[in-house]
Amino acid sequence: MVQSSSGPTFTPLVVVELTSDAKREAVEWLLSRIRDQQQAGGAELLVEQLAPAVGAQEKENPNVFVVGASRQRLLSGAEEVGLFKEFSDGSMRTFTCSNKHNFRDFEGDGDSFLSMAECQFIIKHELDTLRAKDETHVPGYAQVKLYPGKSIVRRLQSKGILIQMFPLHEKEELKRLSFSWYKRVKLSFQPLDDIRHYYGEGLAFYFGFLEYFTFALAPMALIGVPYYLFDWEDYDKYVLFAVFNLIWCTVILEFWKRCSASLAYRWGTLSRKKAFEEPRPGFHGVLGFNPVTGREEPLYPNAKRHLRIYLVSLPFVLLCLYLSLYVMMVYFQMEGWALNVHDEEPTFWTGVLLFIPSVIYAVVIEVMNLIYRYAAEFLTEWENHRLESSYQNHLVLKVLVFNFFNCFASLFYIAFAMQDMVLLRQSLATLLITSQILNQFMEAFLPYWLQRRRNKKMIHKVQRRRTLEDREFPLAEQVRLEAEMSTYLGTFDDYLEQFLLFGYVSLFSCVYPLAAVLVLLNNVTEVYSDAFKMCRVFKRPFSDPAANIGVWQLAFEAMSVIAVVTNFALIGLSPQVKAYFPESDTQLILWTVAIEHGLLAFKFILTFLIPDVPKHIQIKLSRLEFQSLEALKKKKMLEASELRTVEQ
Amino acid sequence: MVQSSSGPTFTPLVVVELTSDAKREAVEWLLSRIRDQQQAGGAELLVEQLAPAVGAQEKENPNVFVVGASRQRLLSGAEEVGLFKEFSDGSMRTFTCSNKHNFRDFEGDGDSFLSMAECQFIIKHELDTLRAKDETHVPGYAQVKLYPGKSIVRRLQSKGILIQMFPLHEKEELKRLSFSWYKRVKLSFQPLDDIRHYYGEGLAFYFGFLEYFTFALAPMALIGVPYYLFDWEDYDKYVLFAVFNLIWCTVILEFWKRCSASLAYRWGTLSRKKAFEEPRPGFHGVLGFNPVTGREEPLYPNAKRHLRIYLVSLPFVLLCLYLSLYVMMVYFQMEGWALNVHDEEPTFWTGVLLFIPSVIYAVVIEVMNLIYRYAAEFLTEWENHRLESSYQNHLVLKVLVFNFFNCFASLFYIAFAMQDMVLLRQSLATLLITSQILNQFMEAFLPYWLQRRRNKKMIHKVQRRRTLEDREFPLAEQVRLEAEMSTYLGTFDDYLEQFLLFGYVSLFSCVYPLAAVLVLLNNVTEVYSDAFKMCRVFKRPFSDPAANIGVWQLAFEAMSVIAVVTNFALIGLSPQVKAYFPESDTQLILWTVAIEHGLLAFKFILTFLIPDVPKHIQIKLSRLEFQSLEALKKKKMLEASELRTVEQ
Repeated sequence: MVQSSSGPTFTPLVVVELTSDAKREAVEWLLSRIRDQQQAGGAELLVEQLAPAVGAQEKENPNVFVVGASRQRLLSGAEEVGLFKEFSDGSMRTFTCSNKHNFRDFEGDGDSFLSMAECQFIIKHELDTLRAKDETHVPGYAQVKLYPGKSIVRRLQSKGILIQMFPLHEKEELKRLSFSWYKRVKLSFQPLDDIRHYYGEGLAFYFGFLEYFTFALAPMALIGVPYYLFDWEDYDKYVLFAVFNLIWCTVILEFWKRCSASLAYRWGTLSRKKAFEEPRPGFHGVLGFNPVTGREEPLYPNAKRHLRIYLVSLPFVLLCLYLSLYVMMVYFQMEGWALNVHDEEPTFWTGVLLFIPSVIYAVVIEVMNLIYRYAAEFLTEWENHRLESSYQNHLVLKVLVFNFFNCFASLFYIAFAMQDMVLLRQSLATLLITSQILNQFMEAFLPYWLQRRRNKKMIHKVQRRRTLEDREFPLAEQVRLEAEMSTYLGTFDDYLEQFLLFGYVSLFSCVYPLAAVLVLLNNVTEVYSDAFKMCRVFKRPFSDPAANIGVWQLAFEAMSVIAVVTNFALIGLSPQVKAYFPESDTQLILWTVAIEHGLLAFKFILTFLIPDVPKHIQIKLSRLEFQSLEALKKKKMLEASELRTVEQ
Repeated sequence: MVQSSSGPTFTPLVVVELTSDAKREAVEWLLSRIRDQQQAGGAELLVEQLAPAVGAQEKENPNVFVVGASRQRLLSGAEEVGLFKEFSDGSMRTFTCSNKHNFRDFEGDGDSFLSMAECQFIIKHELDTLRAKDETHVPGYAQVKLYPGKSIVRRLQSKGILIQMFPLHEKEELKRLSFSWYKRVKLSFQPLDDIRHYYGEGLAFYFGFLEYFTFALAPMALIGVPYYLFDWEDYDKYVLFAVFNLIWCTVILEFWKRCSASLAYRWGTLSRKKAFEEPRPGFHGVLGFNPVTGREEPLYPNAKRHLRIYLVSLPFVLLCLYLSLYVMMVYFQMEGWALNVHDEEPTFWTGVLLFIPSVIYAVVIEVMNLIYRYAAEFLTEWENHRLESSYQNHLVLKVLVFNFFNCFASLFYIAFAMQDMVLLRQSLATLLITSQILNQFMEAFLPYWLQRRRNKKMIHKVQRRRTLEDREFPLAEQVRLEAEMSTYLGTFDDYLEQFLLFGYVSLFSCVYPLAAVLVLLNNVTEVYSDAFKMCRVFKRPFSDPAANIGVWQLAFEAMSVIAVVTNFALIGLSPQVKAYFPESDTQLILWTVAIEHGLLAFKFILTFLIPDVPKHIQIKLSRLEFQSLEALKKKKMLEASELRTVEQ
């Protein structure tokens, strides 16, 4: 093991941290497999042990390694992962080494061709696909079994030998990015291309969506303010606003799809093919043969998984929904009690008391959401899904259903069972404001405060060391500092928050027009706090080449269908509309239902009619496809004519 | 021009008929372009003029040509069109000449490797893609302009110089096919594979769907008969049947999708990529450059087309819908008048008179559908769509909307506005039976009768000639006979009929349970009459490599959504359900609507949950994809390492 005290001689990209008590054989074996030639089944990467902090008084983990790669290796890796880069004609094409000089930013040896995030993604891919050959177990750990083709890193991860693997921040670029992103308060778009450059497409899509949604809220907020100011008590007038809501929530999602396709095209992920998914790290089962790849792999019968889903997870979710309903009923009792107190002897304090149940309920909702979230993760893990994507889908489904129920059940009950629009407005306002305050606190301020405490300790330690030894270890310190930072767990919670906010706005904002304004304000601060937490609080995440916001698009669309139905029901309940049918409720309901069905049908037709990909991008994609088809045809024709010449 | 009196020396596959007064230069130019080498931009096919009937007294068109190709040319053509054939490991793969010996049925020179339908499809493709080089017009026709890249055959077709192009029947195989298909009355499945082998996938899918739908009707018919027999007048009891309907129409369509995927996999069209679509023959516009291909091509602004669609076609369709409503109202007046007459002095004849308005209405509906069909074709042609697929979509949409309205408006009116279930049942029965009789007559007997008259004339002529000259011209006579047969215009009308039948069954059969029985009987005879008309009445159609039933799947699914809503509304109307809500209609309606929304949501979720492709086929497809990816990766890795060796 080469161990230079002056740090590695290559640009370190990714940090791999093993447990401090990892067996020496295992470490050496892993390093040699990482360094081995590709023909020999290795990853052909560069890896060095991090220099220990000289004079460190506390025990530091010695098993921290930095991984890098030669320029040549990174380029061939880029080809392996199927990276799309800008071609000289402005189109986005899969990068190939043989064709490298035809790509726009490829100059000289191609040193600055790949962004650091891309390099880190390539290294992660190479490490993840480093497979066992004929080893039956990890050296030094007889109980950590291996079989040919098993991803080594994933096995070490699932057995806790590999603690973490994360990409390093780039100090200079991060400073530049954070300056243009959140350090100045300004009226401009976010630097989405820079975000994508630094964090990858997945995160850039989240911020893109956040920005889009915030702008989409503007017209609603603009209409909402006068509504709120001049019609405060005249809530019969909400029909027009409900109609606006109805159209709004359909249209913005359709246009986001087009917007998302434009972004994905610009970032080269639109026509990217999905790679074959490996089993996720936690997946276990009896060793057998995968019917698709023919490789040895653990298999877990689908029937067993279905049993777990339908006999355990489903009843559990239903139980939680029941619990949530029960809590709701307790809330209504408290509400009634507070109202009684206020009615008997109204003072300022009883007026405040009126809001207390809602606030408590809002806090309880957030706490229940949090607890349920952990339970859902545990259950979905236990369901033992083979693929990360199927795990994610089941988790999202579980969490969404409960969150939707938990947050909106009381509002639906007030609106349609109690038909009390004043209470609805009041509940909505309390729920919205309380959950926003809680969220901002939990999401940004708490982690930041924890991080600052940790940073201070570290800096203190470093400074003491410096005065002691007067030598600098910038890399070693940077790595240890970043290793201590919290890990960003992905965009799930961020999207979930936006989903619930979208629900509040699209479902009930006609009754409380200020909701759009509140959500708009929340989202403006959200951009800043999310940007801040990405740059300062969390470890850099690996980029993931997303082509859209994935399952969330579906979730938002489902919400917009529910919003159409809800708004129509609210319209049907409004005294304004009721006035048209003075005699018969039946007529009113039948007409409402008929028109609602028509609108739903129209909504679905609209979804078909508006193309998901803008025309100009469609043309560019077709052109690329056409060119490659033509090239293939020409090649085949040549081969065929050669063949015929030979046969003749 | 070689003209052997003994007929061509190759297997004739496709017949090309030009007008009898076609200019000699044009004919010779076309033939030489067809015969030219591929490198020289020709089609490299074999083509011969059909020997004129010796001693023909009437004038016969001399410009009839038969086209064939060498075995080698057909194989390379199979590669060009991307034909899928069975590989030695049982999977379906794109055929390549270099790999030909690894395909299952490839023996020796591969003489019987391609079916005749496949060969004919290849020849059609080659003729269609025979493009103008630097000709500015067709020789001999200065006004028939050409530009580089324009399909010659399409231009000749649109200018009427080329009258028709059709594949020849195979007498022996046709005899065998028709024997196993419709000549014996038997309880077995249709020989779908043979049908596909002879007619191609598109038609085989229609017959597959017809068979599937017929079988799917069986349980409904089985339940319907006792319902009909024992509850004839007790129409309150239809709730259970409506619930059954609801589930039935959702489930059968979902399973058809899986069934269709299995067929498409077996026939190798499931993962077939769509070729680039050429502009359709009738498309015209100002010459410009296609943004996708970069080729010169007529362009027609989208805005102009939209103007035509929204300012002419849409108002026209709405006018027709209004007319249809007007006719419906006239029908109800007639109905009322007949009822009056019957009530005043009921005799047997007035009892018959009760049915007369419905019969007349049914006939008028069919006539209106027919006229509208021509109008819709004219309008869609006039909208000047660039692609055949977009033309088809617009035509299908226009025709479906009107047909749906025309056939079902009166039933909806009776069911929900008049709420007269007795009249509904009577109307449904009359409409269904009348339209079935008319359809069978128009579809099979009329063309058959016309064809027989034509055939008799022909045979008469041939026999007279034989006695005169005592020489045989089997090919020439076969060609002339087939050229006279009617052209099969595609599966449009057949699917449309099934669509309307599906509507009758799924929308209202709970009120008239015998509907399923009637439709079942109709479909059983339909199988025989359709098979008969394909084998005996029509020219052989070119096969088209379809992967599913296309836009019709969508149409049937839309119908099934409407069916869910309708059945629920019928349930809400039923006295049985009304009995549960004795006091308030409002409660009843609200509950009905709420449950209906839930069911609709469940239906959509079900569509997501049931995978469209059966698991075992999914695995086979993934395996193929995985293998090709692995091969590609290996190739790239080799190239990259070679490159590195060179650079070092």
